[in-house]
Parts: sequence; C-alpha cells; structure tokens
Amino acid sequence: MRLSIGKEEILQRQQKWRARLQENRIDCAILFSVTDIFYLTAFHFRPSERPICFFVDPQEKTHLFVPALEREHAEEYAYVDAVHSYPEYPSLRHPMEYLKEALLESGFQERTVGLDAEGYSSAKGYRGPRLRDFLPAKAFSSIRGWVEEMRFIKSPAEIELIRESCCWGNLAHRLLQKYSKPGRSEIEITGRASAEATMAMVETLGPGYKPHGDTVTARAVFRGQVGPMSAFPHAVTQNLVLKRGDTLVTGAGADVWGYHSELERTMFVEEVSREQEKYFQLMYEAQEVAFRHIMPGKPASTVEQAVQSFFRENGVQHLTCHHTGHNIGLLGHEAPFFDLGDETIMEPGMVFTVEPGIYVKGLGGFRHSDTVLVTDQGMEMLTYYPRDLASLVCG
Amino acid sequence: MRLSIGKEEILQRQQKWRARLQENRIDCAILFSVTDIFYLTAFHFRPSERPICFFVDPQEKTHLFVPALEREHAEEYAYVDAVHSYPEYPSLRHPMEYLKEALLESGFQERTVGLDAEGYSSAKGYRGPRLRDFLPAKAFSSIRGWVEEMRFIKSPAEIELIRESCCWGNLAHRLLQKYSKPGRSEIEITGRASAEATMAMVETLGPGYKPHGDTVTARAVFRGQVGPMSAFPHAVTQNLVLKRGDTLVTGAGADVWGYHSELERTMFVEEVSREQEKYFQLMYEAQEVAFRHIMPGKPASTVEQAVQSFFRENGVQHLTCHHTGHNIGLLGHEAPFFDLGDETIMEPGMVFTVEPGIYVKGLGGFRHSDTVLVTDQGMEMLTYYPRDLASLVCG
Repeated sequence: MRLSIGKEEILQRQQKWRARLQENRIDCAILFSVTDIFYLTAFHFRPSERPICFFVDPQEKTHLFVPALEREHAEEYAYVDAVHSYPEYPSLRHPMEYLKEALLESGFQERTVGLDAEGYSSAKGYRGPRLRDFLPAKAFSSIRGWVEEMRFIKSPAEIELIRESCCWGNLAHRLLQKYSKPGRSEIEITGRASAEATMAMVETLGPGYKPHGDTVTARAVFRGQVGPMSAFPHAVTQNLVLKRGDTLVTGAGADVWGYHSELERTMFVEEVSREQEKYFQLMYEAQEVAFRHIMPGKPASTVEQAVQSFFRENGVQHLTCHHTGHNIGLLGHEAPFFDLGDETIMEPGMVFTVEPGIYVKGLGGFRHSDTVLVTDQGMEMLTYYPRDLASLVCG
Repeated sequence: MRLSIGKEEILQRQQKWRARLQENRIDCAILFSVTDIFYLTAFHFRPSERPICFFVDPQEKTHLFVPALEREHAEEYAYVDAVHSYPEYPSLRHPMEYLKEALLESGFQERTVGLDAEGYSSAKGYRGPRLRDFLPAKAFSSIRGWVEEMRFIKSPAEIELIRESCCWGNLAHRLLQKYSKPGRSEIEITGRASAEATMAMVETLGPGYKPHGDTVTARAVFRGQVGPMSAFPHAVTQNLVLKRGDTLVTGAGADVWGYHSELERTMFVEEVSREQEKYFQLMYEAQEVAFRHIMPGKPASTVEQAVQSFFRENGVQHLTCHHTGHNIGLLGHEAPFFDLGDETIMEPGMVFTVEPGIYVKGLGGFRHSDTVLVTDQGMEMLTYYPRDLASLVCG
C-alpha cells in the first residue's frame, strides 16, 4: 500500500495550476499558503517567524524560498526545480530582500504576477513589507483560493489516504469508548486511547508511514463535550470527569501523509434517559436525511436545506446552531460546506463530513459526524463506526 | 496554586491597550488575532471557517463577535461587556454584514478605527470582504503588533504558569529519556512519554487545571531528529527507529492555561563518539556564552553577536543556521529574538529560549534549548533538566 502521494501526481497538480495561470494571462505566481505549498510540492513545514514561499517563474520553473535551516529539508523532500534560501529572520538583511533578488533573477520584473496573499504572515513574530511594495511587477493579480479549489475534488490516491485515516480513527474511537467509564477524566481516556491507537498504527504501517503533523497520529477526544458541557458545540478540553448518565460528544481521526478524516459520536455513560434518546433519534434521522441528499450535480446547499426542513418539521430548529458539514482533506475544515449559502455543485471525489447537531442546554449535545465520499451515484460512507444508540452506551 | 490568569489582570490588559489607542487618537479598534483575543479576553477558540473578532467601541466597551455555535462559550468565558453572534458561515447573509451592523450600533461610523488586519482570514475555507470595503469609518489605522508588544514582558502570574509548564515538560522529558532505547520507534517513545506525563499532570493539578490547546497537555518529542536526520534543525516526525550511537535532538513542554515553555536536549543512544562529544561540548559552551550575555538594558542582538563570535572562534560557524532564541509565552515562538537584527532591549519579565545549534551532515544536530527569564540582575533558568553529556546518554 502506498502511504503517500507520488511525485507524478504532485507534478500533475503543478501543471494543472500553471495551466490556470496561463488561461488567466498570469506570467508567474507566488504562494504563501502552507497547505497549498504542501499540496503542490510535498514540502511540509511548520510555519514560524521565518518566511517561506513557493513560486513559479515565467519559464514555468518551480522554486521554493526557505530559511537556511530548512534548505536541506526542502532539497530532500520538495518536488521543485530550485531551492533558494536566506540566512535567518530577522537578521541584518530582511528575507524579503533575498526574495526580491530571487524573483528578479527568475524574471519577475515587468510581469503579471499572481499572488495568494500580500506577503508572508505569521502570528509568530514576523514583520515584513508587502510584495507590491518591493517587486517591480507590471501588475499583481489575486489568485487566492485557486489551489484550494483544486483541492475540492480528491484523486483516487488521496481517497485511499483518507480511507486509511478512517481506519485508525475508528480504532482510536473503539478504545475511547472502551475506556469511557464513570470516574475517569476525559484527558486520561483520550490520552490512553490515542497513545494506543497511535502505536498500533505505527506498528502496522511500518517505516513507510510518515506522519505530517503531530506525533500523536491517531486520536480520539472529547474536547470538553462531556455531560452538560457537551451542549457547547465547539468546546475545548476541560479536564472533566465522566459521570453516569452523561451525554458525550466525541471526535476521532488520524493523519495519513497529511490527510484527515472525521468520526464523531454521541455516546452515553451507562444509562440513557427518555429525553436523551429523543434527541439522539432526531439527530440520527437528520444525518440520514443528509445522506439521502448527497448526490453529484446538486448544489451543496440542498443538503443543508433538507436537514433544516427536517429540524423545522420536528420543532427543534431553535436547538441547532451550525451547518451540516464541510469538506475535509489536508485541513480538518475545508470549503465547500453543506450550508444554505454554498452553491458549489457536488462532484464525485469530494469528501464531506456529515454532522447535523442538536444542542440542549443542561442536557447535552447530540451530533454524529461521518466522513463520506461523493460518488457517481450518490455517496459512500468512508467512516464505519456503529451509529445506533444501543452500540453507543459506554461503561 | 492559581492555574489561570485572573479577571483583574485581563481587565488591566484591556485598560493598557485602550490607553495606547487613546494616546494615538484612535477612537475604537478591531482585533482578529486569535492569540491577542485570548490575551485580552480569556476567550480561547480554535479558528475555523467562521469569523471571530474582538472590538472596543468609542465608549470603551468591549465586545466579542462570534458565530452562534460559540455564543454561550463566549458568554461563559470571555471578560467582555457584550457578545454578538451571527447564525453561520457562509449562510445566506455574510457574517461581515452582521459585523457591520454591530459596529455601527456601537458607534464606529465616522471614527478613526484601529485594525490589526484587513479582515478575518483563515485557511479553512473562509472568504470575505475587507473592513475598509464596508465600514464607513473616518480613517483606518494599523495597530498590528500592539498587543504582541504588550506580550513581550510577562507578569508574575504569567511567569508562574510558565514555571508550571517547565515542571511538566521536565517530567515528559525524563520519561522520553527513560524510554529511548535502540530498536524503539520515535513515535512509540514520544507517545508513551507524553501520555504518561499528561496523566501525571492532570492527576496532580486536579480539576482546577484547564488545558487550552491539545488534549496531550505535556509532551516530549523527537520530530524526526534521530540519528543523521537530527542534522535537519526543523525536521518533522519521521517514524524513525533509534539505533546505538544515534544523536537525538528532543523537545518537551506543557500547556498551562495556554502558556508554554521549551526544553530541548541533545542526547546519544548508548554510546558517544569523539566527534559527537566535540560538537556537543561546543554547543554546550555556546549556550553558556548566551546565558552570560542575557541582561536587562542590552539589545537582544548582543546575545546573538556573542554566540556567533564564539562559533567563529571555534571554526564552526558554517555548521550553524539559525538564531540563538526567541521569546515564548502563548505561542511557541514569539518576538523578540536573540538575532543580529533584533534591537529590542531586554527587560525583566521577558522569557526567552536559549538554543544555539550546530548541525553536522551525516552525524547529527547538537542543540539544547532552555527557557530563561530576564531578571533585574541577569537571568534565571526556568527549565532545570541536566545539560551535561554524562546525564544525556540513553539506553
């Protein structure tokens, strides 16, 4: 099994992107987006105070611009024609002066230059000028979002990586459920489940497996969604202790060569009240409604419309507060969205989460999330964890 | 022990920031920076496709603007006068239309408005207009970096949180060293050490402890810096297996109410060659040189100058590729830097990493990192893990 995207596919992506530049009469272009640079070059890095960018010159040669400490790393891993480096940031000479030199040597002067951002930006202490302030271009043209749009539809190789991610997210979630007992803290449960799943993943996949993010490669978490706190849809870890009767909202996934999946379940500790069961069933049915409306050729918004109609018919729309799902791939959330305002047409190869939620103050949150693939006929479930109530009572 | 920053200190921060706005004749202001919003309001969130911002109006009232799904979370945790929310993004009406309404209701029209960014931005699928395109202000004024500058000097309460972080980073690193044996993979070792340290931390600190990031709250890692790969100063996890004689470069830390520390060590698996010892000692002495040059009233650059002189005198400057250190606090890397180009004056309360590094292709990387506090007299070490060679041979 291949656990990466091959060089050929990376070069095809570059070609496709360059073709769009040409169609738009853009001579050359510069990208700062960390995710887009990884997508187009296979060069993975953690952004810091030191600027990094990718550029393609008017002769269609590809370049990475990195700090000295990333140079060898870039030369070894990036599928580009040239690597340029500067000593350090801030240093005595600003990295943008080196970038200007590299761009001029590569023929950027008096050209129409595509840009995904005005310059490098990072919260980690970087300051620097905008490109338009130092590059003598003929014109600048925004190409923000172009690579993101290429990422909407996954290739067969990308789908395989996401399938593999689902497998290890599934294991992490199994362990999370197994260890979810009254009296245990969420951090204890998530730590144990995630560490064990990560080790099983690493042992199974062997040395061919390279993670592209955290060292915890497979994980299952609560993020504070324990008991009444589960009614906060985007809570953060709270170090809560599980109690009998708690509603739990979980999350699980794994990083496979930078690709992700999402698995979330509503679970209950030892017992389920009538009220908990009622909201669980409504959430379950809302997810079924969404599944039935996922089909190629229709706008993404139709899925949200159907779910909202279902919620209205059942008198629970006041208990909902977010859209039904989002694309997923290199990032945990990506466009397009199952949302009233998203008219993007669903196409085979898109990978979405499906996660309509109901939130009842004082009682808890009710949300499953599954990762699904849009197919020629409709959709295919990529996650495969039990969804029914009986399977989700822990303890 | 207090494991958080109290409301009073948060409100003092707001007051200090508003005072600077007033001095600069800025009537009201808007911030999008996730870290700065946390610093000024105690509201912690994970950025997504849904825009969030903080603003202060001309009457000095503070506001958070969040999506519906964060509303109750914000009302419960944020120290602000008002919380505004919008239904969802993208939805049928763009969040910036709601923001415009909230800003006009709060008196932003025809005022001088401070901004830390042109608008919300996120890699996770958000698109939206710049504020200047929809807000009828008198003028816009950049206040980018102002809160970051406030964060340069840590308060006693912040320093206590960083000290606590050092303690748990130390434990994670102890366990990492204990489990570092030939034949074990880096992910296995880091997973076990981090999970055990996290559990000890959570048990010890009890329910008063709230993490503000990951569920793995204390961690120790290799990030691929194992054997010859340790010569890549910013490597990413590689799933490598340790071998006798490998040079290792580690990293450890813990999240205490969003605050961090950094502990890194050069270690060796079972045996150390003459060559490894030589570079280790040079790195060790370079760190000592840096420690001696950390003193209030001097520019941060003096530390880097001293380290570079030492490296030049010892003929290893060609084996170095990054500056000596950076500030640390809410983010892992923050300005100012121990770098030739950073003339910021060191002041008591600043917390820096000290981590001069030597990288020898084929052999490995040599870098310790310690977290230190600038004091009235010089500096105080906050990390306290052994630094000498004899203590750092594993197996």
